[in-house]
Amino acid sequence: MNLRVVLVEPMYEGNVGSVARSMKNFGFHDLVLVNPCQIEDFGLAMAAHARDVLQMARSVSNLQEALEGVSLVVGTTGKRLGEEQHHLRLHLRAPCLDPAQLAEKLKGKEGEVALLLGREDCGLRNEELATCDLIVSIPTSQQYPVMNLSHAAAVLFYELSSVESGSVDLASRETLLLLLDRSKELLQEVSYPEHKQEFTLLMLRRIFGRAALTEREARTLLGVIKNLRWKASAPLESSLESIPKQDTEI
Amino acid sequence: MNLRVVLVEPMYEGNVGSVARSMKNFGFHDLVLVNPCQIEDFGLAMAAHARDVLQMARSVSNLQEALEGVSLVVGTTGKRLGEEQHHLRLHLRAPCLDPAQLAEKLKGKEGEVALLLGREDCGLRNEELATCDLIVSIPTSQQYPVMNLSHAAAVLFYELSSVESGSVDLASRETLLLLLDRSKELLQEVSYPEHKQEFTLLMLRRIFGRAALTEREARTLLGVIKNLRWKASAPLESSLESIPKQDTEI
Repeated sequence: MNLRVVLVEPMYEGNVGSVARSMKNFGFHDLVLVNPCQIEDFGLAMAAHARDVLQMARSVSNLQEALEGVSLVVGTTGKRLGEEQHHLRLHLRAPCLDPAQLAEKLKGKEGEVALLLGREDCGLRNEELATCDLIVSIPTSQQYPVMNLSHAAAVLFYELSSVESGSVDLASRETLLLLLDRSKELLQEVSYPEHKQEFTLLMLRRIFGRAALTEREARTLLGVIKNLRWKASAPLESSLESIPKQDTEI
Repeated sequence: MNLRVVLVEPMYEGNVGSVARSMKNFGFHDLVLVNPCQIEDFGLAMAAHARDVLQMARSVSNLQEALEGVSLVVGTTGKRLGEEQHHLRLHLRAPCLDPAQLAEKLKGKEGEVALLLGREDCGLRNEELATCDLIVSIPTSQQYPVMNLSHAAAVLFYELSSVESGSVDLASRETLLLLLDRSKELLQEVSYPEHKQEFTLLMLRRIFGRAALTEREARTLLGVIKNLRWKASAPLESSLESIPKQDTEI
């Protein structure tokens, strides 16, 4: 499969090197680093025979740049949230796939998939998770759920290495973002309760992500929305057709 | 499952600490070290919050001692053997299970299982592999098959852990069918082209199915549709608000 590994603000060069090694172990080569720490001798030593992966890695200054050209964005999280964070969990991290479910989901798809791994101390931020189409989490012990970054990466690469890509053409990022924009405008136009809009849009993003929309499906949905918006925003015209009767009565 | 992790002559304390951490991540605690390197500060640092696992680890001087009380011994190998080593492969390393097959194999078994991981440079020796009941190997890239010890361990613990993931409440069949009915009515009401309706509804069903909608999500979508239908089917009311002006003009 066509996987881009994106490390978001990694703090320790040893981990970056270890991730590069593990990538090559499982046949992956495309590494992008967002605002990384300095990579020096220790990082290169940990990469061992995957030094080439590390040296070919691109460094960028923001997440958006790292995601250019990607069809599907998969975020990772190891955080377990307490009851008091129920709201957050619902909005950002649920539902969560396990690595095997993610692999199953990506089977037979065509298009580039970005796998986002966050900082060693606090992972991906909420606004970063909100830009992800799918969230994956490795089922770990409640007693000590926080994995080392490169170990989590190894487990994910292991599961994803068995994924054979196919010919199902994933919707491009561009089309998907357009679909979300149009959905937002639609909700606003039909007076969908404002306080529910953000959650509902995030939910739509997750649904589209889990469904791994094809380009054709995304475009059909855009057509549906166009129809809905046309009907909702031009009530005058359609109602005028039914008005003459009233005129006569008047 | 009842797993004993046996590191045979590990050479680097950082790896031992990392393995301990990964064990605790996946709910395993029983670590035995055969003739290990010295474990000092760096090893403890890499163990992070699994320092207890490392401190409780038993050091023994030979493999036999490490395997006392164990029911089944599983050896690990990353070695790919050439044709000239066909004989070796047959006797020692084949048939090789992959980690998922190993997990399947151990399902429902009672008794302690030892998982043997060898030296960082040369793995388990032939005579050590010969004492194993099962051999497991992680499928890796031919280009660079040799994994870091603790990464290989993490992948194996991941597969062997029986940690159950959460309880996502799937949408009931009833709610899902209602959602499809409402979607159909909505398309009809907004004059979505008739010849496209059947296909679009089927597509929606596939999307909902692949996304494995939760009950909550399905109900939220029903709410969205209710809003849309209200707006689309009551154009008169909303347009009347803008009509008085026209009335005045007439």
